[in-house]
Amino acid sequence: MSFDRNRHSHRRYNPLAGRWVLVSPQRSLRPWQGQTESPDTALRPSHDPSCYLCAGNTRINGEQNPDYTGTFVFDNDFAALMADVPAPDAAGTGAPEGADGLFEAMPARGTSRVICFSPDHSRSLPELDEAALRQVVQTWCDQSEELGRQWRWVQVFENKGAMMGCSNPHPHGQIWACDFLPELPNREDQQQRDWLATRGEPMLLALARAEAASGERVVVQNDDWLAIVPYWAEWPFETLLLPRFPVQRLEQMTESQRARLADALRELTTRYDNLFQCSFPYSMGWHGAPSGPDAPDGAHWQLHAHFHPPLLRSATVRKFMVGFELLAESQRDLTPEQAAARLREQSTVHYRQR
Amino acid sequence: MSFDRNRHSHRRYNPLAGRWVLVSPQRSLRPWQGQTESPDTALRPSHDPSCYLCAGNTRINGEQNPDYTGTFVFDNDFAALMADVPAPDAAGTGAPEGADGLFEAMPARGTSRVICFSPDHSRSLPELDEAALRQVVQTWCDQSEELGRQWRWVQVFENKGAMMGCSNPHPHGQIWACDFLPELPNREDQQQRDWLATRGEPMLLALARAEAASGERVVVQNDDWLAIVPYWAEWPFETLLLPRFPVQRLEQMTESQRARLADALRELTTRYDNLFQCSFPYSMGWHGAPSGPDAPDGAHWQLHAHFHPPLLRSATVRKFMVGFELLAESQRDLTPEQAAARLREQSTVHYRQR
Ligand SMILES: O=P(O)(O)O[C@H]1O[C@H](CO)[C@@H](O)[C@H](O)[C@H]1O
Ligand SMILES: O=P(O)(O)O[C@H]1O[C@H](CO)[C@@H](O)[C@H](O)[C@H]1O
Repeated sequence: MSFDRNRHSHRRYNPLAGRWVLVSPQRSLRPWQGQTESPDTALRPSHDPSCYLCAGNTRINGEQNPDYTGTFVFDNDFAALMADVPAPDAAGTGAPEGADGLFEAMPARGTSRVICFSPDHSRSLPELDEAALRQVVQTWCDQSEELGRQWRWVQVFENKGAMMGCSNPHPHGQIWACDFLPELPNREDQQQRDWLATRGEPMLLALARAEAASGERVVVQNDDWLAIVPYWAEWPFETLLLPRFPVQRLEQMTESQRARLADALRELTTRYDNLFQCSFPYSMGWHGAPSGPDAPDGAHWQLHAHFHPPLLRSATVRKFMVGFELLAESQRDLTPEQAAARLREQSTVHYRQR
Repeated sequence: MSFDRNRHSHRRYNPLAGRWVLVSPQRSLRPWQGQTESPDTALRPSHDPSCYLCAGNTRINGEQNPDYTGTFVFDNDFAALMADVPAPDAAGTGAPEGADGLFEAMPARGTSRVICFSPDHSRSLPELDEAALRQVVQTWCDQSEELGRQWRWVQVFENKGAMMGCSNPHPHGQIWACDFLPELPNREDQQQRDWLATRGEPMLLALARAEAASGERVVVQNDDWLAIVPYWAEWPFETLLLPRFPVQRLEQMTESQRARLADALRELTTRYDNLFQCSFPYSMGWHGAPSGPDAPDGAHWQLHAHFHPPLLRSATVRKFMVGFELLAESQRDLTPEQAAARLREQSTVHYRQR
């Protein structure tokens, strides 16, 4: 019997995060009798008077949003990170004495912002017009540059859909910037640094070239950008959005690279929405080279975005990352190649605009 | 201004998994306007004719369950791991040529079983009587011993509640055993090994002693066992169940240690159910020393169980591990000390039995 990746369980290695994932394609046959989700297929008004993100409306803390017409950025009213907090000391953490190494704490300072993508309450990224989508890209770049001057890590991200903890359907994302390199970026930094040192080329540039040549896992491709379902994807329809040119951070892109990025984003999110004919939930975010006043050389780092969508089989059946996944290792059913093929089959015209 | 762990964001280090977590206690004030969950407060019959796990009923693959009276173990009908699968080869994985290091795969073999905890469809762990709960512990020990003879890692776990991907409320758990050391156990193995080498004592024995002495994060305590909200907990009410005696695997426990474990389990799961007056969802699982015919010395390893419950504020509001958590680092709102205090306040009598 010879190995068939569509039938036989195996593990795949993620060289970017430095971890393995279990692939069990034979499990796709499993019937699902568990919890089902409510798909988001709602048609919303362009302005919702009860939405705290719509232009002109009042937020929970009493502030009034301006009558913005493009993107709108403001400080998160309930920030997880603050700029001025004292550093933990032994007394403050309450660590018992004589228990060295078991109760370690360190400071965590930062700031947190919300980015409204558009005043139009009803349109998520794939439904924005070209100029509006370019403005979202532009805002990400500007914020990355501004916050990167002060902070070591600038996490630009979007939680989309109630399933992904998003509490408001108004199209928006967030930025959490901080004075430390968080766990996953720290792993990616080490892995990319080691790769460049031993192989003489940034890992993700080599990856973009290999994937473009193979085509098997490609979902979106234009002159500057490539979206693939990575060989080591954990979420069923996870993708990695990769530049095909060397670039370390969002703000370093040229005008035309930004325009091509907007194109790639529209195509990717349209294919996502079309897959199960719903507003496709995900968490997405950008990983650029670590920043701040003391940023070390970042030649090993390639800018990229991760998309982590939870849906598995339909608009109502999701993948649960629980049990074995939480306690041992991520596991997936369909193969990344099957997921990429499914996404490639979709139209590039949004199902609502047909 | 001096540091106050209940008001100031900070990071804490998890020496067992070797990773940091962001603690943002000031965020507990955030109002929640997002998705709410349906709490499980259902009263169920002792036997449900449509349940494929109840005694005497027929499963999806046509097999009939025996008229079991205690626990009942069978092979998972849709296993993620199989004992006989060929090893991936370059042709089979479809890795493009000349892309060394980007497309690595390895074999993943194993087996997967389901453990029904009791024929009584209506009772989860805290509602089982003493003899029945001891039998669950006994079954875990027997399975760990049997599967550990062949497999390198034996992951005993329970996904409880629809929110945690559990597709059937009949009280049951699972075992996935495999011929590789999965990601997280591998990290824990390295961390515990390094700890013993540099400090001369197993990490988790030192931890149990320090936590019992401090008491601040203790939720359950008896002569042999301690349940704590670890200093570095990621989930709001996460706990770590620790033996207070040296032991590497489930099957090595004495009779009385098993009995005390059943007591600790009842108390912990009762406090959980009482917290929000619902059947408290979680994923829990055992981490024993790696096994198999070539198991290396395990003196560094202490047996322990992790409980990962998703609820945050009430039976209907959960913590979402999305966005920043998926892309950067786990983040929590209330402190572990606050969570432990909340759990300690609860009665040890189950709310349904009062
Ligand atoms: O219990 P099931 O149906 O096998 O499946 C459940 O637990 C598995 C192991 O934790 C997960 O991989 C699945 O995502 C989850 O739905
Ligand atoms: O968008 P919110 O309300 O700030 O919060 C959401 O995103 C955060 C960052 O990913 C998570 O920590 C929360 O669990 C989630 O509910």
